[in-house]
Amino acid sequence: MLQDEKRTSTYRNAILGNKHLFRGKVVMDVGCGTGILSMFAAQAGAAKIIGIDNSAIIERARKIIKDNNFEDDITLIRGKVEEVSLPEGIENVDIIVSEWMGQALFYESVLSTIIYARDKWLKPGGLIFPDRVALYLAGIEGEEELELSMNCWKDYYGLNMEAMRQWRLFEASIESIIPTRVVTNSCLVKNVDIYRIKEEDLSFTSQIHLQSRTDSLIHGFVLFFEVEFTSCVMRTGFSTSPLAYYTHWNHLTIYFDGKTLNTKKGEELFGSIRINPNSIVRVNIYLYIIQ
Amino acid sequence: MLQDEKRTSTYRNAILGNKHLFRGKVVMDVGCGTGILSMFAAQAGAAKIIGIDNSAIIERARKIIKDNNFEDDITLIRGKVEEVSLPEGIENVDIIVSEWMGQALFYESVLSTIIYARDKWLKPGGLIFPDRVALYLAGIEGEEELELSMNCWKDYYGLNMEAMRQWRLFEASIESIIPTRVVTNSCLVKNVDIYRIKEEDLSFTSQIHLQSRTDSLIHGFVLFFEVEFTSCVMRTGFSTSPLAYYTHWNHLTIYFDGKTLNTKKGEELFGSIRINPNSIVRVNIYLYIIQ
Repeated sequence: MLQDEKRTSTYRNAILGNKHLFRGKVVMDVGCGTGILSMFAAQAGAAKIIGIDNSAIIERARKIIKDNNFEDDITLIRGKVEEVSLPEGIENVDIIVSEWMGQALFYESVLSTIIYARDKWLKPGGLIFPDRVALYLAGIEGEEELELSMNCWKDYYGLNMEAMRQWRLFEASIESIIPTRVVTNSCLVKNVDIYRIKEEDLSFTSQIHLQSRTDSLIHGFVLFFEVEFTSCVMRTGFSTSPLAYYTHWNHLTIYFDGKTLNTKKGEELFGSIRINPNSIVRVNIYLYIIQ
Repeated sequence: MLQDEKRTSTYRNAILGNKHLFRGKVVMDVGCGTGILSMFAAQAGAAKIIGIDNSAIIERARKIIKDNNFEDDITLIRGKVEEVSLPEGIENVDIIVSEWMGQALFYESVLSTIIYARDKWLKPGGLIFPDRVALYLAGIEGEEELELSMNCWKDYYGLNMEAMRQWRLFEASIESIIPTRVVTNSCLVKNVDIYRIKEEDLSFTSQIHLQSRTDSLIHGFVLFFEVEFTSCVMRTGFSTSPLAYYTHWNHLTIYFDGKTLNTKKGEELFGSIRINPNSIVRVNIYLYIIQ
């Protein structure tokens, strides 16, 4: 994960490029992992940083923080955010930093943990890094992928395994989508203000409205997201779109069940998508085409 | 998993190439997944096949088995092998087939489930497919991987993350090792007779004895395994060695902690390796070199 250049450098720019926000402040790093964001905050002049993580990697983070002489600035706590207590003398925090985003934002993400930490510890007027995320959807061409999977299962060592194909096509999978396979515009599925989102907002249904860019075949969709740090002086963020730089999230795709949408340039598609945290694979898409 | 050609075709050859062993027999498929091995057994003339799996994929297997008209031959049971009951009228089985092998054989494998099924249901003189597996180890060159990881962590956005490097090197990882990186002979770590292995044999310490093939640098080890179906008329099996065809297991590697062994052609290395099921990452290697 540390080897995702785009992700790490954006967080670094957001923190080190905005020292005026961090100087002398109390910072919480939710799901701190190796402690990298905590150290960026220390470098930016934070008075105290509390890193929380429930995974064994925090033991490694202790050594890294010692190796970089940040022991006085950073306190690491191993445990669940919902169960830990803050160090003595600290009752709340000025800034929450976290890298919590899962596939298609919500899948296996810890956004509900961020909500918990925000409501319990963030001072009124405190900052969250990042504070705005948005989920998008676009239509993709996947003739080759479809062919491959259809041929593969139709006659699999002499057996009919079509049921596997159908299964696969209903499931979301992670792929690397080259830009030319994106054949529609992008449509906003959900815009999230991290200051205001509530636990119950994490399951939702959104309307889809797409427009075909060219005469093309649509075999499925790609879901991607944008992350923004709106408190920064300069516009700071990144996107996991197939049209942007590579990130370790890659692209989440969902194919139709063996069907192909034949669309002409400018044609519009309407539908809806249902998202549940921790079950992104059960996305349901209903489409109506206006020709 | 079904797309591992080497694996699936070997199982198919083992079963369909030995119909005389399967004809009229009762077969159990432990961890049947999509039901592919059960269907091979049905094609080979088995009278009755019982497929057991505790995962949701078995619901898909039900459809596949119906699509291929094997409903009368194959009975699928969803549940843990340790908890299920056999269909009425069946008290034991003639043959157990299973694809249970994990990384380096033992990691997250279900060998103990095979042992359980064997002791409870396999008739005296019954067969197990496969019935012999063996784990091997060889020394590998990894200068580039080592360089990469050392440079990466020494100065990571101005921070010293060397502790990450050390961590990584102690851990096992999955890689694709090209044959030229294997610089020693292979050494047998453990030979397993599936008819005789007991639960307590799954944790063990083995002696290592390797010989350098050329003047070379050794940076770590690769672990791989061989699988054999010794009841077959023709020698049938496959290997996950870097010198064999690709399989989905790929290669499990363990690097030294930043150290390099400088060996000359013919030099011998002695040591030991400790394997625990479900914690292959805690392999300990002690080496003595005879020059």
